[in-house]
Amino acid sequence: MVKVILHGCNGAMGRVISELAGEMEEIRIVAGVDLEDKGLYAYPVYQELKSCPKADVIVDFSSAKAVDALLEACAGSQIPLVLCTTGLSREQVEKVQEVSKYIPVLRSANMSLGINTLLRILQEAAKTFSSAGFDIEIVEKHHNRKADAPSGTALALADAINEAAGGSYHYTYGREGRQQREKKEIGLHAVRCGTMAGEHEVIFAGPDEVITFGHTAYSKAVFAKGALEAARFLAGKEPGLYTMGDVIENFSK
Amino acid sequence: MVKVILHGCNGAMGRVISELAGEMEEIRIVAGVDLEDKGLYAYPVYQELKSCPKADVIVDFSSAKAVDALLEACAGSQIPLVLCTTGLSREQVEKVQEVSKYIPVLRSANMSLGINTLLRILQEAAKTFSSAGFDIEIVEKHHNRKADAPSGTALALADAINEAAGGSYHYTYGREGRQQREKKEIGLHAVRCGTMAGEHEVIFAGPDEVITFGHTAYSKAVFAKGALEAARFLAGKEPGLYTMGDVIENFSK
Amino acid sequence: MVKVILHGCNGAMGRVISELAGEMEEIRIVAGVDLEDKGLYAYPVYQELKSCPKADVIVDFSSAKAVDALLEACAGSQIPLVLCTTGLSREQVEKVQEVSKYIPVLRSANMSLGINTLLRILQEAAKTFSSAGFDIEIVEKHHNRKADAPSGTALALADAINEAAGGSYHYTYGREGRQQREKKEIGLHAVRCGTMAGEHEVIFAGPDEVITFGHTAYSKAVFAKGALEAARFLAGKEPGLYTMGDVIENFSK
Amino acid sequence: MVKVILHGCNGAMGRVISELAGEMEEIRIVAGVDLEDKGLYAYPVYQELKSCPKADVIVDFSSAKAVDALLEACAGSQIPLVLCTTGLSREQVEKVQEVSKYIPVLRSANMSLGINTLLRILQEAAKTFSSAGFDIEIVEKHHNRKADAPSGTALALADAINEAAGGSYHYTYGREGRQQREKKEIGLHAVRCGTMAGEHEVIFAGPDEVITFGHTAYSKAVFAKGALEAARFLAGKEPGLYTMGDVIENFSK
Repeated sequence: MVKVILHGCNGAMGRVISELAGEMEEIRIVAGVDLEDKGLYAYPVYQELKSCPKADVIVDFSSAKAVDALLEACAGSQIPLVLCTTGLSREQVEKVQEVSKYIPVLRSANMSLGINTLLRILQEAAKTFSSAGFDIEIVEKHHNRKADAPSGTALALADAINEAAGGSYHYTYGREGRQQREKKEIGLHAVRCGTMAGEHEVIFAGPDEVITFGHTAYSKAVFAKGALEAARFLAGKEPGLYTMGDVIENFSK
Repeated sequence: MVKVILHGCNGAMGRVISELAGEMEEIRIVAGVDLEDKGLYAYPVYQELKSCPKADVIVDFSSAKAVDALLEACAGSQIPLVLCTTGLSREQVEKVQEVSKYIPVLRSANMSLGINTLLRILQEAAKTFSSAGFDIEIVEKHHNRKADAPSGTALALADAINEAAGGSYHYTYGREGRQQREKKEIGLHAVRCGTMAGEHEVIFAGPDEVITFGHTAYSKAVFAKGALEAARFLAGKEPGLYTMGDVIENFSK
Repeated sequence: MVKVILHGCNGAMGRVISELAGEMEEIRIVAGVDLEDKGLYAYPVYQELKSCPKADVIVDFSSAKAVDALLEACAGSQIPLVLCTTGLSREQVEKVQEVSKYIPVLRSANMSLGINTLLRILQEAAKTFSSAGFDIEIVEKHHNRKADAPSGTALALADAINEAAGGSYHYTYGREGRQQREKKEIGLHAVRCGTMAGEHEVIFAGPDEVITFGHTAYSKAVFAKGALEAARFLAGKEPGLYTMGDVIENFSK
Repeated sequence: MVKVILHGCNGAMGRVISELAGEMEEIRIVAGVDLEDKGLYAYPVYQELKSCPKADVIVDFSSAKAVDALLEACAGSQIPLVLCTTGLSREQVEKVQEVSKYIPVLRSANMSLGINTLLRILQEAAKTFSSAGFDIEIVEKHHNRKADAPSGTALALADAINEAAGGSYHYTYGREGRQQREKKEIGLHAVRCGTMAGEHEVIFAGPDEVITFGHTAYSKAVFAKGALEAARFLAGKEPGLYTMGDVIENFSK
């Protein structure tokens, strides 16, 4: 059984993970970390990681500003970290890499099986279609309370494509007025409406044909499940930087 | 038989209309107007409307800057006008209304049966869904050479919805950074890629459900056909401002 | 406050309605009817309607075979009935009409605001597009445990279109082998996969253009909410046959 | 310059290829084969392959019943063959393999860059998603005159997925009545409407998430272009069986 500390347990994702973990035999949340203990859960909630009991892995779904303290505490505590918070600054990303020398860290913008499989597959597609001169655009759709745009996942998809295609694309985030599209441009469009858990569509368009890669999450449970599978995977691993791709590869075996 | 003068005959739409008109018995293009006669067509091409032979209706697919001279010439010549050029200034729109006191004018951002039927239907949908607090977004996709964004059709769809919903919405043309969606906001997203003739999707999204209205044009022939049907409808009508809605209503009878 | 008896309370929809009703102040479920009382709810569960305490309206999400007894019991008890079970036989549909002479009955294949708004709007679209000779197809997608195909909602959409278009279409439920499509044919395609709560897409396709009307339910809560709104609407009404269209009309005022 | 004989030159695809070849410098159609010479083209049309002048490659877009004679004539003539006709019988497929011992043969159900890239990529996706227990469905859409269902391309996609997933799936071609989906089932849905050149969507659906791979052809020119690229690739090759995958691989270099 894998003992988990849930960092950011009072947030929307924290609640979904807590509920899902209650249904899984191989996972137990032994403590949460957040601003206060609202009495929501069977496990105790502390304000600091160092107050928590011993555990096998930390799962984080907090906020970018809470990540600095988390990384410092993790490095000291020697517990593996599944880092799901998006919107990190460049300094924070560097700190993650530094910390991964001492503990195993798995960082991902999106915890779903579907998106992470797409991330792998898209690289081959991007090579072929960019060689053929096809245009690339991404449309993502999320609920009307999402604060950041475009989504971390849309940026991760664009980065994966850009890397595979030689790294020469720039991004644009909407179009208005008179200006023709540039060849080396990826358009990122952030639709915000209703309660949608998350949709992403990658478009490759050439002369008279269009190829699309789509992903729809119908609930936050998809991400919770992925995060807990990542926790189970990461417990007991060597220090280093891991990805959801590693979890899936292990899973496909 | 309806005799047509094609204003802007050398452009992409001019070519498609010329080809289609050649296949229709009830329509004949008797002259074109454009910067030069490239010898593309069986009919003669003049630089000015006043040089053209007598005709029953003018069909215009030129450019916003050519519209001023067109409107003046039309008012004098007493020939009905099907005006398909988009991106007109407010002054030009007012001039169109003035001219329509003397001759019949049909102006439309999109000549297809599908879009114009949607424009009528969407008003009822907009009333219901805006009362219910649903969010509204529009995604449009066009070929990579299209110079303006969003499309005139997307704006026409947004205007029709906004009017039906009480006129209190503002438009946004892309999202980047940290900022939550406002309630009275319509997002307009302009995807540009490949050779797509034109796709529009209107989205109404509420708690756990989404309703979409979509239109795809597979070629420019759709717009050419609508323009020529409008020409046939407009020939011999009383002065006034007409819409494609009138053509369709007549067509459904 | 409206007192509700939930007929078929142990099923998947019964659970969702029970949860949602617990969050609404104006609605209270006073009893359930099902094969046994599993102790799932705060309210008591009886095996027969006649054992239940007095209530203002019955909401039914049971199964076609349970509907006969329900209709008889309702007619005697004088309580209004919201009937959401689909797949009724012709005899059962006739019995519903008979019973509606004595009590108010609202029967609907789909309780969502979105589908019921589409049902109204589609009639106008169907008239225009069938006059223009466009082809009509419907694709619906549901979770892999759904037992019937096509969905009751897809059939209701097809019936509404067919009626508006003059009633001369026949339906086909898949295509295999060599056989060209007939003009007066509506194709109904039932995709079954994953855990999808329900997607419907109506397609009108003519020369080089396609118009689509889509609806996606992201959870069963959409249908639960509609059923409880229908219950609130129906309580205290005159005998007769009502539809979700009546609820929406009332709602839009 | 590559000299091409176009087998089945009077059909819809024959016309599109003839037009496109006229715009390409590196390709010249030197003769066509079909039932009669309608005087459509600049090149002569013969009733038999053996009457044709010398050429570098034969491109075939005829019909299944014309393929037997074609294969015999090809084997004798020693000219490479791009075989685009679909709906071949098992015996014909075996004959193709036999003939490929003596001449280079490229056979493909779909000549587009997009579909052939998808065919390669889908195999990896199929492995991952079938391991994870996701359901697989395919929806394809074609114009209302298409005689066979499902499309040869949809079957090729299903076969590629099935092979990668261990070959244990069976196919179903529509659903009607009461019957739950089986686990090892791929649903193939053939929508027929309007003038659509061809759309394919492959769906992988698991718990609360759906991944889609889509392809839309906006005109037959896509397939014509692919066929002529295949012709250029095949001219001068060693005997053997080739695929569009080989053309694309060569193209990406």
